[in-house]
Amino acid sequence: MSPRLITFLSDYGLADDFVGVCHGVIAGICPDARVIDLTHGVPRGDVRAGALILRGALPHVPVGVHLAVVDPGVGGDRRAVALRLDDGRMLVGPDNGLLSLAGPVLEAVDVGRSPFALQAVSATFHGRDIFAPVAARLAGGAELAEAGDPIDPAGLVAMSLTRARVLDGTLFAHALYLDQFGNVQLDASPSDSGLQTGTRLGVAVRGESWPSVYGRTFADVSPGDLLVYEDASGQLAVAVNQGSAADRLGIAVGDELRIAPD
Amino acid sequence: MSPRLITFLSDYGLADDFVGVCHGVIAGICPDARVIDLTHGVPRGDVRAGALILRGALPHVPVGVHLAVVDPGVGGDRRAVALRLDDGRMLVGPDNGLLSLAGPVLEAVDVGRSPFALQAVSATFHGRDIFAPVAARLAGGAELAEAGDPIDPAGLVAMSLTRARVLDGTLFAHALYLDQFGNVQLDASPSDSGLQTGTRLGVAVRGESWPSVYGRTFADVSPGDLLVYEDASGQLAVAVNQGSAADRLGIAVGDELRIAPD
Amino acid sequence: MSPRLITFLSDYGLADDFVGVCHGVIAGICPDARVIDLTHGVPRGDVRAGALILRGALPHVPVGVHLAVVDPGVGGDRRAVALRLDDGRMLVGPDNGLLSLAGPVLEAVDVGRSPFALQAVSATFHGRDIFAPVAARLAGGAELAEAGDPIDPAGLVAMSLTRARVLDGTLFAHALYLDQFGNVQLDASPSDSGLQTGTRLGVAVRGESWPSVYGRTFADVSPGDLLVYEDASGQLAVAVNQGSAADRLGIAVGDELRIAPD
Repeated sequence: MSPRLITFLSDYGLADDFVGVCHGVIAGICPDARVIDLTHGVPRGDVRAGALILRGALPHVPVGVHLAVVDPGVGGDRRAVALRLDDGRMLVGPDNGLLSLAGPVLEAVDVGRSPFALQAVSATFHGRDIFAPVAARLAGGAELAEAGDPIDPAGLVAMSLTRARVLDGTLFAHALYLDQFGNVQLDASPSDSGLQTGTRLGVAVRGESWPSVYGRTFADVSPGDLLVYEDASGQLAVAVNQGSAADRLGIAVGDELRIAPD
Repeated sequence: MSPRLITFLSDYGLADDFVGVCHGVIAGICPDARVIDLTHGVPRGDVRAGALILRGALPHVPVGVHLAVVDPGVGGDRRAVALRLDDGRMLVGPDNGLLSLAGPVLEAVDVGRSPFALQAVSATFHGRDIFAPVAARLAGGAELAEAGDPIDPAGLVAMSLTRARVLDGTLFAHALYLDQFGNVQLDASPSDSGLQTGTRLGVAVRGESWPSVYGRTFADVSPGDLLVYEDASGQLAVAVNQGSAADRLGIAVGDELRIAPD
Repeated sequence: MSPRLITFLSDYGLADDFVGVCHGVIAGICPDARVIDLTHGVPRGDVRAGALILRGALPHVPVGVHLAVVDPGVGGDRRAVALRLDDGRMLVGPDNGLLSLAGPVLEAVDVGRSPFALQAVSATFHGRDIFAPVAARLAGGAELAEAGDPIDPAGLVAMSLTRARVLDGTLFAHALYLDQFGNVQLDASPSDSGLQTGTRLGVAVRGESWPSVYGRTFADVSPGDLLVYEDASGQLAVAVNQGSAADRLGIAVGDELRIAPD
C-alpha cells in the first residue's frame, strides 16, 4: 500500500519554522508521505475556529491521516490523542475539542507517551515531538493501536456550538466563523431560514439594521452591498461584495444576527 | 507519461483553508500530481496583478497545467475557461483577463459546465468545485477538448497595459506592479530608457523629484537611497536599498514616473 | 539513489511569487526533488535571525540539501557558496554568516559563476538564478566540487553571538530571537541558569522588574503571567501564557535581561 496522505492544520503561522520543522520530522519518518497544509492561519489558540475549519475541509480531501494542532494547553493536563473515524480517517492532535466536529469516532488512543514520539519530548512543542511523528507512522502503515493506550471515545472532549432558531418569521442566528475577507458564516443552514433567492431582507445586529438580499453569489449585489447567501460549506452566511461584512456590521464571533424579510 | 506539474496562483491568502482544500481536491483526483504554489498573496480581486505575476513566473517553471484564480465575478456572468498555449502549457481559470498575458492561445474551452467539475458546484468557490478538478484531470492526462465546450480564443477577455514612452530625453513610465517590499516595476524595459549604468537620474512623481542612479543591484546605492535598475523580470524598476520605494515616493499602481538624466 | 530532500528558508515572504518561482526552477531541474519550506518569514534582510532559525531547525530535518537565502547584499561583493558539513548536509546560500551556525564545514565552493546557474543571471534574484539551480543539481546527485570553485572553509564569513553569564546569582542574558508570538529566546541554556522548576524569579529589563516563575510549559502559569522555561530548542526563554512576552516587557533582539530568584 502506498503511504497515506497527511493533512496538516495548525495555529503555528508561517512566520517561524514551526510548520517547516514538523514537515521535516514527517519526512524523516515517512519519506514518501504526501503532506497537504490545510492552513496554519488558525487564530492563535482558537480551538473552536480550528475545529470548524477542519469540519468544513475534510469532506473535500481524501481519506488519510489528519494532523491538527491548536493546543494552548500543550504540556499541561490535556490529553494527546489519535482517533479513527467511521469513514476511515485518522486524526491526530490534542484532546481539547479541536477534533470533535470531524465525525463519529470508532477508536481512540492516548498518544501522550506514544512509542512513536521522538526520544526527547519538549514541554511546549508537541506538534514536532508527538503529533507529527505519530501522524507519520500512521501514514506509513502503523496500526492505531500501536500508537498509544486505548481510551473510551465517549470520554473525548466535545465542543458545543450555538444553533440558530426561527421565531415569528425572524431568524435568530450567530456568527460562527469569520474568514480573512470578513465573510460571516452563521450557525444556520439555508433550509433553516426558508428564504427564497431574491428576497429583500433586513439584517439587524445590536439594534442596528442593514438592508440586504438573499442571493447566490457576491456579484448578485453591487460592490459594497450586503448579501445573505449559502456559502461553499452549505451554511448560511453574510458577505459584502468586494468588501468585509464583519467590518461593515462590526461583527465578532458569537454575535447575534436577526434576519427577516424586509 | 508521468502526471504533469500543476502550478497554482490565487488571491485566496493562507489564513483560511481555501488553498488547502483545493490541494485536497486535486490529490483526490490525481494523487500523483505535483502542485507548486506560485503565490496566494495576490491582492484580493486584483486580476491585473495576478495576470502580471503569472506572466512573470511562467518562463521559469516547467510546462504544465497552470491553475490561476483571481475571480471577483465568481458565480456571475464571466466564463470559466481552460486554455492551451502555443508552448504546450495549459491554463485554467476565470475568463476575466487573468490568463491573458501568459501567451498566445491555440485552443480554448468553456469549463463552466465541465464534466470534470465536482458534482455540486457552489456559487462562490469555483476554485474548489470547477478549476481545481479540471486542472487535476488535465494533469492526469485528459484532453483539453474533454474538459468543456470549445470557444473561439479570439473572444477571450484581454487585458490592456499602459506602455512607457520617451519624449525629449525623459522617460514617461507608469507603476505596473508593487511587490511586498515596495519595489516598483515600471511599464518600460531598460532598452526603452536608453540609460547607462552609473548615470545619475531624477525621478519625478506628481511634481516632486528624487535623486537616483541607474544601477545593477540594491547594493549599488547606500541604504535608504533610490535606485533605478533592470529587475529580475527584465523590466525597468525603482527600488530603495533596504527600504520601500513605493512608500518613499508615495506610489500606487498606475502612477506616472518621469525619469531623466540629472 | 533517490534524489535528496531540499529544505528552503528565506526572507522572500509569500505575498509575491519569489518562493514559487524558485520551486518552479527546482522542479525543472530535478523533478523528483522533495522541497520542504522551513519558513519564508525571516524578517527582511535579517541574516542573524535566518542563521538562528536554520541552526534550530536542521537537527529535526533529514540530511539533505539546505537552501537558505537572506541576502541583502545580492549582486554585490558577498560570495555565493555551497558547503558540505561534517554530518553530510549540503548548504547553499550567500556567504554572509547565514549558513555559519549550521555546523562544521568540511568543503566549500564559490558558486558565483557556477556552471549550474541559469544561463542569464540577474543582479537581484540569485535565489532563482544561482542558489535554487545549484541546490537542485546537488539534490539530483551532482558532486559539490562540480558546483563551483573550491574555497577555504576557514575564510567563510562567521557570525558571532552574545552569551549569557552569571554574576552573584543573577543571570545576565540577552534576547536572541523573538518568535511571531512574542516568545523570547535567550542566549543561555537552562544549565547556565542553574534554576529549579517552580522557583519564583524576578526578570528585569531596563531597570523594571517583573515577577515570574521557572516552569516547564505555558500552562504552568495563569494566562497573562510570565514564565521562564526551556524552549523546544533547548534554550532558556521567556514567555507569557496566551500572550506576548516581547510586547509585555518591551523587548527587542539584543536587549539585556537580568534573571534572579525572587
